[in-house]
Amino acid sequence: MADYKSRLSFYADEFNAYAEAQTESLLSKEPSSFGSELMVEAMKYSLITSGKRIRPALCLEFCRLCSGDYRQAMPLALAVETVHTYSLIHDDLPCMDDDDYRRGKLSSHKKFGYANALLAGDALLTLAFEIIASCDLDDGKKVRAAKILSSAAGYRGMVAGQVMDLRNESVKADLECVELTDELKTGEMIRASGLLGCAAAGEYGEKADAAESFCGKIGLAFQIVDDILDVEGSSEELGKAVGSDEKNDKSTYVSLLGVEKAKALALSLTDDAVKALDVFGSEADFLRELAYGLVERKK
Amino acid sequence: MADYKSRLSFYADEFNAYAEAQTESLLSKEPSSFGSELMVEAMKYSLITSGKRIRPALCLEFCRLCSGDYRQAMPLALAVETVHTYSLIHDDLPCMDDDDYRRGKLSSHKKFGYANALLAGDALLTLAFEIIASCDLDDGKKVRAAKILSSAAGYRGMVAGQVMDLRNESVKADLECVELTDELKTGEMIRASGLLGCAAAGEYGEKADAAESFCGKIGLAFQIVDDILDVEGSSEELGKAVGSDEKNDKSTYVSLLGVEKAKALALSLTDDAVKALDVFGSEADFLRELAYGLVERKK
Repeated sequence: MADYKSRLSFYADEFNAYAEAQTESLLSKEPSSFGSELMVEAMKYSLITSGKRIRPALCLEFCRLCSGDYRQAMPLALAVETVHTYSLIHDDLPCMDDDDYRRGKLSSHKKFGYANALLAGDALLTLAFEIIASCDLDDGKKVRAAKILSSAAGYRGMVAGQVMDLRNESVKADLECVELTDELKTGEMIRASGLLGCAAAGEYGEKADAAESFCGKIGLAFQIVDDILDVEGSSEELGKAVGSDEKNDKSTYVSLLGVEKAKALALSLTDDAVKALDVFGSEADFLRELAYGLVERKK
Repeated sequence: MADYKSRLSFYADEFNAYAEAQTESLLSKEPSSFGSELMVEAMKYSLITSGKRIRPALCLEFCRLCSGDYRQAMPLALAVETVHTYSLIHDDLPCMDDDDYRRGKLSSHKKFGYANALLAGDALLTLAFEIIASCDLDDGKKVRAAKILSSAAGYRGMVAGQVMDLRNESVKADLECVELTDELKTGEMIRASGLLGCAAAGEYGEKADAAESFCGKIGLAFQIVDDILDVEGSSEELGKAVGSDEKNDKSTYVSLLGVEKAKALALSLTDDAVKALDVFGSEADFLRELAYGLVERKK
């Protein structure tokens, strides 16, 4: 278990160093203006944090498992985390979940104001595609990456999940609807993280299918655990408000199944996910441990 | 003059037919959900309108002027209009300009609610890059197009202009600041429209420079005329509220120079813009007439 945590930290540290260097370099680009300076400040505020960096770690590790150097996948890891960060900023806005805290800090709109937070989210989403288009990968890999990311993040992926998530607060949802919501809202971007790592290594075959299957399943398990922590966790540990699902009367796995059955489901999804890793043999032990570690996480 | 209007209509009709067919096809893609259906409806509501389609026309015409078939550039024309449409939806939100009408219809948040309008904007921005990544152009052109669009739309382009535009309501801006605001907010996406047309034709040299110069200048002139119409136009003709700049006490060319001097500046910018078209000879007469037509427009 120590192994998986140290490699996760290694990836997070490498990623953070890269993300800081890249965001530092943003201000050296023309044209510069008061507007671009404020946007860089707001983007950095939300992007450079103490997050777990699960998505970057999956991207980097799947690149390595597909015989690539994990550093090749760094721009794609940054792109996926940039999109994830934009979605958190917009999710926290008063018209959405209206959360004042995120990752232990004031949320973007509390810090920069409503309009600037909205625009910082827009800027991050746009930046993700600029990062992909401008990186050192060959054009074929860039186009593949842009397809994966836009499809996962867009109207039939993450955004569709957010629409459904909001509706689940006003309309009683059944288990099937909650599953689809979570697959789209959370699963799609985690699935994309693995696929992007494969794309960086030029792998589009059997191993990419395995990555997609593994990441899709742990993505759903991840959201179930998130819902459990919203009931059982402390806001101090999580760095954000808890109890929001109950307060919003939102249908979740926990409200529909209870905590114990939800936990069992997350574990069973993880068992399934891990089976997809067979094609990688013992090389994938980090991901096996990570998958179970995520189910048992307390924050 | 009749000529320029008929070609502009031709491009608008071709573009609208393409945009409708493309958005119709969105729902046939998996995964489909309540969320994706609502997003497609909201995206179509804002995208399929009676807009002037200036940006698509510039994109298509510059492709033709660079020895391409204008139809090659259609996906890039759609991408740029998709980004433009997202920016209008977010601009109209209560936390931004708080406008209830756009292009003669209820604005997106009045029709679909605040959160869904926010998400529809996000979905459109993401879709723009999916359109580019999935179209029939070769990978090199796609990457070039994604670079042009992300750079023009992002934190040091259009978004920076929106940040500055909002600030110009609370802080008295001088002429230099207003110029930079308008260049970024409006000019960048119009500049990108021309460059995208060149990119579709594989033209990155002298002609692309000419397109950039022409479009950058008419983009600024376009915004100046917009500000004039906000004072002189009727909301019936424009399909949106007028007098909003004065109501918001916003610094604009008109508030700083007065209507007459602002008109003269727009005309002089257009004279300069048209000079950049020399490299295309008489083939560019449509653009010359379009440029002067935009200065004289009443809506």
